[in-house]
Amino acid sequence: MTQKLTHVDAQGRANMVDVGDKPETDRIAVAEGYVYMAPETLHLIEEGSLKKGDVLTVARIAGIIGAKKTSDLIPLCHPLPLTKIDVQLELVKEKSAVRIWVRTRTMGKTGVEMEALTAVSVTALTIYDMAKAVDRAMRIGDIRLLEKHGGTHGDYVADEVSNAG
Amino acid sequence: MTQKLTHVDAQGRANMVDVGDKPETDRIAVAEGYVYMAPETLHLIEEGSLKKGDVLTVARIAGIIGAKKTSDLIPLCHPLPLTKIDVQLELVKEKSAVRIWVRTRTMGKTGVEMEALTAVSVTALTIYDMAKAVDRAMRIGDIRLLEKHGGTHGDYVADEVSNAG
Amino acid sequence: MTQKLTHVDAQGRANMVDVGDKPETDRIAVAEGYVYMAPETLHLIEEGSLKKGDVLTVARIAGIIGAKKTSDLIPLCHPLPLTKIDVQLELVKEKSAVRIWVRTRTMGKTGVEMEALTAVSVTALTIYDMAKAVDRAMRIGDIRLLEKHGGTHGDYVADEVSNAG
Amino acid sequence: MTQKLTHVDAQGRANMVDVGDKPETDRIAVAEGYVYMAPETLHLIEEGSLKKGDVLTVARIAGIIGAKKTSDLIPLCHPLPLTKIDVQLELVKEKSAVRIWVRTRTMGKTGVEMEALTAVSVTALTIYDMAKAVDRAMRIGDIRLLEKHGGTHGDYVADEVSNAG
Amino acid sequence: MTQKLTHVDAQGRANMVDVGDKPETDRIAVAEGYVYMAPETLHLIEEGSLKKGDVLTVARIAGIIGAKKTSDLIPLCHPLPLTKIDVQLELVKEKSAVRIWVRTRTMGKTGVEMEALTAVSVTALTIYDMAKAVDRAMRIGDIRLLEKHGGTHGDYVADEVSNAG
Amino acid sequence: MTQKLTHVDAQGRANMVDVGDKPETDRIAVAEGYVYMAPETLHLIEEGSLKKGDVLTVARIAGIIGAKKTSDLIPLCHPLPLTKIDVQLELVKEKSAVRIWVRTRTMGKTGVEMEALTAVSVTALTIYDMAKAVDRAMRIGDIRLLEKHGGTHGDYVADEVSNAG
Repeated sequence: MTQKLTHVDAQGRANMVDVGDKPETDRIAVAEGYVYMAPETLHLIEEGSLKKGDVLTVARIAGIIGAKKTSDLIPLCHPLPLTKIDVQLELVKEKSAVRIWVRTRTMGKTGVEMEALTAVSVTALTIYDMAKAVDRAMRIGDIRLLEKHGGTHGDYVADEVSNAG
Repeated sequence: MTQKLTHVDAQGRANMVDVGDKPETDRIAVAEGYVYMAPETLHLIEEGSLKKGDVLTVARIAGIIGAKKTSDLIPLCHPLPLTKIDVQLELVKEKSAVRIWVRTRTMGKTGVEMEALTAVSVTALTIYDMAKAVDRAMRIGDIRLLEKHGGTHGDYVADEVSNAG
Repeated sequence: MTQKLTHVDAQGRANMVDVGDKPETDRIAVAEGYVYMAPETLHLIEEGSLKKGDVLTVARIAGIIGAKKTSDLIPLCHPLPLTKIDVQLELVKEKSAVRIWVRTRTMGKTGVEMEALTAVSVTALTIYDMAKAVDRAMRIGDIRLLEKHGGTHGDYVADEVSNAG
Repeated sequence: MTQKLTHVDAQGRANMVDVGDKPETDRIAVAEGYVYMAPETLHLIEEGSLKKGDVLTVARIAGIIGAKKTSDLIPLCHPLPLTKIDVQLELVKEKSAVRIWVRTRTMGKTGVEMEALTAVSVTALTIYDMAKAVDRAMRIGDIRLLEKHGGTHGDYVADEVSNAG
Repeated sequence: MTQKLTHVDAQGRANMVDVGDKPETDRIAVAEGYVYMAPETLHLIEEGSLKKGDVLTVARIAGIIGAKKTSDLIPLCHPLPLTKIDVQLELVKEKSAVRIWVRTRTMGKTGVEMEALTAVSVTALTIYDMAKAVDRAMRIGDIRLLEKHGGTHGDYVADEVSNAG
Repeated sequence: MTQKLTHVDAQGRANMVDVGDKPETDRIAVAEGYVYMAPETLHLIEEGSLKKGDVLTVARIAGIIGAKKTSDLIPLCHPLPLTKIDVQLELVKEKSAVRIWVRTRTMGKTGVEMEALTAVSVTALTIYDMAKAVDRAMRIGDIRLLEKHGGTHGDYVADEVSNAG
């Protein structure tokens, strides 16, 4: 097997990858994740949403802000000037979960999948925070990359996107 | 049903809970999560670990730093001076996953579960970042609170801690 | 005149005030401010508010997050663990303005008026940002402290609170 | 009326505008604001200024640092690498105020007016902080955009620049 | 030898020390450092200082802000609410250097020496930044702890304080 | 003498240099520094290094993260999107010191020497933090720029690179 972890050099030391010689290209990444909860918790969020939408709005805004902090949170991540962060939330009753879907974009030398995954994570944590007083057993899960476009390694589209989770 | 979301006021607006009149008590929280991956990816991380341990160390450090950023990431979270953040990682071959276990502690007016869950999330994202070049299909999941002690609402211990995941 | 600027020492150098010997007391501050705009702009915000409330919610959340960043923004400000940040918005048609009202609280050695004023400012800037494409001539103004309680210097209540602006 | 708030999508949800397809152009913004205060307070600042300049220098530096934090403070703001931030202060005795004037510049896909307005606000808050022990009734106001150049929407110059306030 | 590195546990993993059971006591630390430079560079800084003091003021403010960021910069450092940060600068012609002296204070469970040393470092870097166009060969050095008081380990006073450097 | 401090304008006020008209070129900087300590302290770090490498890894990661925070720490520094940060550590027994060597790179309008020097400083502070319980008398020093390439001012290579310290 010839593959190796890109952030670990020949001496086994963690390192930032040098992207200085890579061209700037249009980069897009899409990621998703879920916050699984009791049906009554989902119902409370839905009711709030019908009135004012605050819980979901706060979580979406937290995700957008979180995406902008990615290189501050992930040690070996390069700073990237995001041109777009789109966070969408969906109440999925059959899973008793809130689904988080994020799309990030930049013109840059490296991909934006960490930004998308970070936005999903921070959105999920914020939903947990706002609902935790009624449901401590919520579970954040199935966070994964759905798509990645642009860059020298070619596109990536995850298997089984339709029945994720 | 009399329960309601604590961060949403009577008008449906999101708000920070007022903890000004709560006593300072010793607070502890424990959380866990997993990064599921291909067996070969787990093997690569294990090999690195046997040589220098860098991947796991970087991820653990990122989780500790992440815990300290919790109130910066979660909009309605109170700032808390953590007295201890313990991040432990375990390679779980039967699940083909890295298990992340975090324990946080403070002397404060409110709990530290968001800090523990944030540390788990940032640790997981960092593992993803360092291994993503060899495995884009990794999945972050089963992030949940295991225990919570201290405070006026009593202790919480999750069900089925032994077979989490 | 015997008064002097507390942050400037005998040599004229700016300095952080030493609060190490001050007792921790319950501190509260209230501040307000306005974003003045064209009536049509206020109308657009009001319409959005009736549907989903997003503009006002984003601005309120930005203000809460901003309050937590106060000591990071104001060089000589002490870090304070806020126990409550309350941001309220009101559409004031007779002034053609959005009124921002903030109340902050902590148990600390120094006051929380800078936190309240910072929250007002960041909320105002966020309203400007979200409406600037339709109205570049908006004006942020009349930001001031309304009340301050707790601490050794006694309470403060601003004159003419009722007809502020 | 066909205008709408750019940060609110068709469903009324707040969103970051996608600037990915906009060209990078030279962008400049100019903004101003005032801190109104008692004449004696202005006199104290002036005296300090004559000796060491510290109050005004601290406020100017805070404004420069604040401009760099704009996308961290304003949720839907894009991160922009500023190439220049110029903060100037003027003691205006006839208004009994400190006038703050800021000019920001970048080569980017979107404008820098939020950076200029944020710098004005943080500068004003810092002046308030340093003088608040002698004058709690200071008022921050008349913060507005004076000029905006570059970008696809054309230039903007505010009315009545000469007698601002 | 029975001493060991406190941040490394029995398995050799880096960890945050648990200070949860330590009492809050009054903590003070004093540190110093130097920026060595060409005599002409020192002369330029001195001239600026005589006029407006800006270079030294900017560096002092940067040091104060830097002290507040310590737990954000040093991974295993606990967040501490500093009650005082004092940064003083002295032009030392016989060493052709700017001497930086910092004193930090808190009421906390752990010491503030990292805050003092971080303030010295950031002050030094800022001096370097502002003078680098005329002198790239400047050297930052002799950063060390001078005194430490409070806490369970007893006081510490460095040897040879008088002829530091 | 016609040289002047670039960050101080004609009125003696500190200012950010305008780099808006400078071209983007490939920029590289190399810097070094030392943490001098008792031989037994160096021995303890070396032993840790042989087992798991954690002390040195934590310090290296802190340096990489620190480099990304440069424009947040140094008031008049421009934000720069680093494409590479390389931090290397060496135990130098004859000096009883850890040597820190950092190389930074970007495609930008201004140099990356502050990023390299900041990374050296934060790495050094982290080593101090982790070893301070056994050796309070450590000294951080001889931080300097070794090389600088790219940009309009030409290259810079420090004298006596071979016997630095």
